[in-house]
Amino acid sequence: MRPYTAADIEAWDLTADVVIAGYGVAGAAAAVEAARAGAEVLVLERAGGWGGAAALAGGFVYLGGGTALQRACGFDDSPEAMAAFLMAAMGPGADQAKVSAYCEGSVAHYDWLVECGVPFKPVFYGEPAWEPAADEGLMYSGGENAHPFDEIAPPAPRGHLPQMENKRTGERGGGYMLMKPLVDTAERLGVEARYGMRIERLVVERDGTVCGVVARTYGERVTVRARRGVVLATGGFTYDEEMLAAHAPRLLGRAGAAVEEHDGIAVKLAQALGAGVAHMDACEVALPMDPQYLIRGMVVNDQGQRFINEDTYPGRIGQAALFQQDDQTFLVLDEEGFEEARRVSAAPEFLQPRPAWVCASASGLAAEMGLPPGALEATLDVYNRHAENGRDPLLHKAARWVRPLRGPLGAVDLRGMTAGFALGGLATGADGEVLHVDGSPIPGLYAAGRATAGIAAWGYASGISLGDGSFFGRRAGRAAARKR
Amino acid sequence: MRPYTAADIEAWDLTADVVIAGYGVAGAAAAVEAARAGAEVLVLERAGGWGGAAALAGGFVYLGGGTALQRACGFDDSPEAMAAFLMAAMGPGADQAKVSAYCEGSVAHYDWLVECGVPFKPVFYGEPAWEPAADEGLMYSGGENAHPFDEIAPPAPRGHLPQMENKRTGERGGGYMLMKPLVDTAERLGVEARYGMRIERLVVERDGTVCGVVARTYGERVTVRARRGVVLATGGFTYDEEMLAAHAPRLLGRAGAAVEEHDGIAVKLAQALGAGVAHMDACEVALPMDPQYLIRGMVVNDQGQRFINEDTYPGRIGQAALFQQDDQTFLVLDEEGFEEARRVSAAPEFLQPRPAWVCASASGLAAEMGLPPGALEATLDVYNRHAENGRDPLLHKAARWVRPLRGPLGAVDLRGMTAGFALGGLATGADGEVLHVDGSPIPGLYAAGRATAGIAAWGYASGISLGDGSFFGRRAGRAAARKR
Repeated sequence: MRPYTAADIEAWDLTADVVIAGYGVAGAAAAVEAARAGAEVLVLERAGGWGGAAALAGGFVYLGGGTALQRACGFDDSPEAMAAFLMAAMGPGADQAKVSAYCEGSVAHYDWLVECGVPFKPVFYGEPAWEPAADEGLMYSGGENAHPFDEIAPPAPRGHLPQMENKRTGERGGGYMLMKPLVDTAERLGVEARYGMRIERLVVERDGTVCGVVARTYGERVTVRARRGVVLATGGFTYDEEMLAAHAPRLLGRAGAAVEEHDGIAVKLAQALGAGVAHMDACEVALPMDPQYLIRGMVVNDQGQRFINEDTYPGRIGQAALFQQDDQTFLVLDEEGFEEARRVSAAPEFLQPRPAWVCASASGLAAEMGLPPGALEATLDVYNRHAENGRDPLLHKAARWVRPLRGPLGAVDLRGMTAGFALGGLATGADGEVLHVDGSPIPGLYAAGRATAGIAAWGYASGISLGDGSFFGRRAGRAAARKR
Repeated sequence: MRPYTAADIEAWDLTADVVIAGYGVAGAAAAVEAARAGAEVLVLERAGGWGGAAALAGGFVYLGGGTALQRACGFDDSPEAMAAFLMAAMGPGADQAKVSAYCEGSVAHYDWLVECGVPFKPVFYGEPAWEPAADEGLMYSGGENAHPFDEIAPPAPRGHLPQMENKRTGERGGGYMLMKPLVDTAERLGVEARYGMRIERLVVERDGTVCGVVARTYGERVTVRARRGVVLATGGFTYDEEMLAAHAPRLLGRAGAAVEEHDGIAVKLAQALGAGVAHMDACEVALPMDPQYLIRGMVVNDQGQRFINEDTYPGRIGQAALFQQDDQTFLVLDEEGFEEARRVSAAPEFLQPRPAWVCASASGLAAEMGLPPGALEATLDVYNRHAENGRDPLLHKAARWVRPLRGPLGAVDLRGMTAGFALGGLATGADGEVLHVDGSPIPGLYAAGRATAGIAAWGYASGISLGDGSFFGRRAGRAAARKR
């Protein structure tokens, strides 16, 4: 993990101007831009093909400020509104400079994706969901239109979803349809890729400038020289149990939406050069349930208390469940709610919950759930009393979704159901330059994607990872391509 | 911040076998043991005198397993019970190896402190409090005897408090009475100390072994050679706003129980050599109120809900308030509770709360507090219904402290009142060796105290910092004194 010096390298097996480790979204974006800047680009990918976590993901890219897609769907947005939302929703500790750059460049970034060939269908999907029902291109994906963010910034949907080819089979999903055009673009630009190449070390010149990497392929060591710069884009550390235990222990045993290549190698290789890290404790957390159910019921903890407005981004419910409620939560819903949700749900079967307990009375249900006597009943009583007036003064669920829960009640057991991935990583500047703990850039070294601490310091919205990965990946690629 | 190489140093201004940066509890413990191991020891302290945060602290040292003080006060304890408590209370993510070493060595560590001259009065203080009323030596300081820990491990009080000379004036408080004997012992052993010396850089040999430091005193650069090892013991990073923003942003603006020397320099100097860090987001959090009040009332959030048993360690209430309730909490108490608490409280005036609102009815009180209608009333109703039977099935406050709250009620505004310090820091081994991100020790470099990630990964108990600082400080001192 400690760097080699250039003097340790007897011969370079491969050479390029810019060497990129990792061919997910950040690596692909970096490759395209480095190539366009005139650099000879070589991508080293550990897996047998390009894609990374991105190609397996839903495909949301968080964009706004008035993109062509937003306008085509009839939504106004501004970089200011987007920044106000992100600073509130991604904090505390969100990086103002990164958020500003991201919001100001977002419209152009959308156009760049389109120009690379990423397809977006100009149709808005307005139902509560993790993903659209079909191939719609735009959705709320961060709770922008729910409490508290609807009062903090003018809401706009910013989840931009590449158009899938076949929703039913899951083939060529959103993430694939994002990655394929980027990789095709890179290939057209002459970017070369080598697969089955696992980076092991960085190589530095005498003055500390990063000038290459050492990788391993089928047991053989490969030395790779980078004439201009190295970009680390190998993803996060969610599949390294030691790093999770040290930084994000609540995710142990609940890795989700990450790939096993996310072993933290980029973070450690750069740390070995003195790089700083940030927000290593932050996590995306998902709750495997269709929001159509959540939004119609009460999500309660094991004291029978509600703790979050059920109409917010379901990832916020997941974060609150894991970090504030010790992953001990339930969904309580009445028969009408269950039936309506099932009727309208467009989600796959694994997101369709079945109640673990059903009972004619709240107190009976609470007893079956093992909740302390009286607590769930009190929660339901207060909820229903206000719901009769279409109000939720405790947690501010929107009136549209508030109605009294009546008759037989059911409860879904959500305990221990969350899963997620770590958001923290290397401290980087707005051009993807990896920052030493003294605040200065480490010469020749860049990083992007989940190897870095990006836009999300604590909170999350769907599309942030593919968003900041592609956005700052491009910048990292351009910066790394500059001649020394 | 980046290291010098030995070749950069033209002349060494000072030389010792072991150079220790920081003269708080970790530095003093390291100095004593390094000197006893036969090393010539030099301590560099940034402030004008020894003491650090320790000398200003209450002075608790978290010890157990059956110390002489515990036995003199009539308590049984075992290293196993202590370890079971710590693994539960300091997690998730607590370091099993460190916790084991700490618990197995705890009885001997107590004897060592006594042998150094630290006075402990063999009297147990059993009242709910942050500190004893007078100069009693032993207290519960982590919620060991309350839910949930009382069912996880046999409870024993483990807060060992050096005997103060004058509780009333605060002179020669517990922390001073810990530090003075340690520093006296070090001086008797020939340890030399230089004050007004701020470390700026580490110096490494060609092979990466740390062989000295560069410090600054009154604007002048001082080069200090360490023949055998360097021990970093300059405290945490609570007074570095950039580091807080990157790692523990919720503490921004609420630093407490730290000193401004806690600028994170040790963490950054070691990171510049590739050192790993751990649990940088973990924080001690205090709530400035005498537990005599908390324990008699209901602590509620801004939805009027209880969220923690009020008889636990008040620092746990503080952590839950800041991290799980967004620092939006209140204490609700009846007249009898306020009066009784005031009558029995031995706490200083600033820990004696005054109600911000008083009202004859719960609904009136809730309205004055700005809580949503019906919520606090429901909470109180459920609480009282169970309290009539001396029970708290929601949060398991012990029967002794549970009684219905009746008549006029008052509420104390606790919103935004928490303060604390960051617990994270350098990854170290059981001998205080600083660990590179590849897991191997960085030769010649040791660290202890709040510059390191110690026993506490997330939770906390009073006495953990002076406890792990002194315990692993001793080990670091011994290890650093070994001849190369």
